[in-house]
Amino acid sequence: MPTNQRILLASRPSGFPTEANFELVEGPVPEPGEGEVLVRNHWLSLDPYMRGRMDAVKSYARCVELGEVMTGGTVGEVVASRNPRFAVGEFVNGPLGWQLYALSDGANLRKVDPARAPLSYYLGVLGMPGVTAWVGLLDIAQPKPGETVVVSAAAGAVGSVAGQLARIKGCRAVGIAGGPAKCDYVARELGFDACVDYKAGRLLDDLKAAAPAGIDVQFENVGGEVLDTALQLMNPFGRITICGLISQYSATEPYPTRNLRSVLVNRLRMQGFIVSDRMQLWPQALAELGELVAAGRIKYRETVAHGLANAPRAFLGMLRGENLGKQLVKLV
Amino acid sequence: MPTNQRILLASRPSGFPTEANFELVEGPVPEPGEGEVLVRNHWLSLDPYMRGRMDAVKSYARCVELGEVMTGGTVGEVVASRNPRFAVGEFVNGPLGWQLYALSDGANLRKVDPARAPLSYYLGVLGMPGVTAWVGLLDIAQPKPGETVVVSAAAGAVGSVAGQLARIKGCRAVGIAGGPAKCDYVARELGFDACVDYKAGRLLDDLKAAAPAGIDVQFENVGGEVLDTALQLMNPFGRITICGLISQYSATEPYPTRNLRSVLVNRLRMQGFIVSDRMQLWPQALAELGELVAAGRIKYRETVAHGLANAPRAFLGMLRGENLGKQLVKLV
Repeated sequence: MPTNQRILLASRPSGFPTEANFELVEGPVPEPGEGEVLVRNHWLSLDPYMRGRMDAVKSYARCVELGEVMTGGTVGEVVASRNPRFAVGEFVNGPLGWQLYALSDGANLRKVDPARAPLSYYLGVLGMPGVTAWVGLLDIAQPKPGETVVVSAAAGAVGSVAGQLARIKGCRAVGIAGGPAKCDYVARELGFDACVDYKAGRLLDDLKAAAPAGIDVQFENVGGEVLDTALQLMNPFGRITICGLISQYSATEPYPTRNLRSVLVNRLRMQGFIVSDRMQLWPQALAELGELVAAGRIKYRETVAHGLANAPRAFLGMLRGENLGKQLVKLV
Repeated sequence: MPTNQRILLASRPSGFPTEANFELVEGPVPEPGEGEVLVRNHWLSLDPYMRGRMDAVKSYARCVELGEVMTGGTVGEVVASRNPRFAVGEFVNGPLGWQLYALSDGANLRKVDPARAPLSYYLGVLGMPGVTAWVGLLDIAQPKPGETVVVSAAAGAVGSVAGQLARIKGCRAVGIAGGPAKCDYVARELGFDACVDYKAGRLLDDLKAAAPAGIDVQFENVGGEVLDTALQLMNPFGRITICGLISQYSATEPYPTRNLRSVLVNRLRMQGFIVSDRMQLWPQALAELGELVAAGRIKYRETVAHGLANAPRAFLGMLRGENLGKQLVKLV
């Protein structure tokens, strides 16, 4: 008789979270009601946005309540079904949370094909992070060939795809990442034209050297000092896609941005977006990303933690920037 | 024999400018060469952007050099012409600067009709400020009926038109202005739904009360604390048009903006613009504004200084917010 494991939000963090904010509980595997399916999760995605859901503040999505299962994207197998749309043995992607088993009425599930790509890819380059990179770069920033695109958190799940897409579109792609190992990965393995190590402490000078013609598109995942520095180097009519502000999620005081004048002087467009606002673009984005991955034109790495119990530690490591590429938890 | 008067930039301000930064010089009236016209300026426009041109820093337009005539829009009469496109006695609008007489090759001149509107209107509601309001609100922010539009510097040349256009488009128009007299003018005479006096020291609370459904469009002329406060009240998918940052032009330290997270959380679009980037929209904007002014649906006031010698004092007064509506200098 299998047992379910779930990780609940036990307390709200003040500043940077700790493992004590999470609680692992065990219990019976639930039974599907009429119209429901039971999914056995194989992979759990860990993403920066989850930090925001731990706070009880207004954001674009409701927060996780205390005692509730942590929110998260998963890929898993249908193991029982009372819903005619899903058969046992099919694989599905959905927001089923930090748990081994979950019920769903199917409305938030998308079938995925394990023969087309490794299952885990549907949480990364062929899932929310990949589509986020595609939408943020191609639909929102709309870079033109020859322009310079700077991507922060360039070694991460979203940034690594955004920068490679920029190169494929004929742009100069400059990454920003933390530490020489990540910068090496971004520049050598992913093929960015340059990568700046923000931990080296010379961000403005190094970014200026890496983007000698100025910045046309800033694909921003980090915020704070990184964004403020990029503002100083933006070209006229540049675009700043605000995809994430990971430096700010656990900050006790918001970073004071000083270079907003650049928005007027350079007639910039700064735009925040959430990929779920643009669901109509997912099919096109996934089709293109699938082809590029299959052709080896987008390279992709994963950092994998094993077992649900290790999810909190892996999540904290990701927030500290310890992962290379997509952070996942293997549950099976 | 007439004498020309010109006001030159004598020195660069550090912080807020003074009259000593300007110098009035007299000299002969120039003679038009082949292809040129000589214009006798009747009106000089004073606008916040001129403060930026006094600094030797990178901006969207080149700065005024020391010893050069101060830049500025004018309306005047052609008094001599060696250009077949212009006849003596015609009236023209152009960037002819702080001077009584100016030469032009005609490329930067636009003929205006003194029978259609008072000449001075071509520097205000039927000129650059009016078109700025039209483009910034209708082309960039694109408010929908029922939305709340907040306009800072609402008693000024641009803001007063932007707010009235918002009302005409079916929006709730909320002004921000300095002092009870201006707020009274904005709410009673211009017909905004509400006006907040930022000098009262309760900006966030007062703005919350005046925009109880939140802000959908922020038409920003001021920047600094005003923009930072508005960011806290923006609704999802709101738009922030950055038309000016008058609070920052003479600031020795840039204001530290703390609420940029709202751009991500609320998926805002923040866009800077300069009206001269969108010259193709001027004919449509001027036609619509002309009809609205003629029909009395846009109300319009001017603050007039008399004589070129008084231009510096009037300019400093405008930067301090002492004018109501469009600040002009009558030269004839």
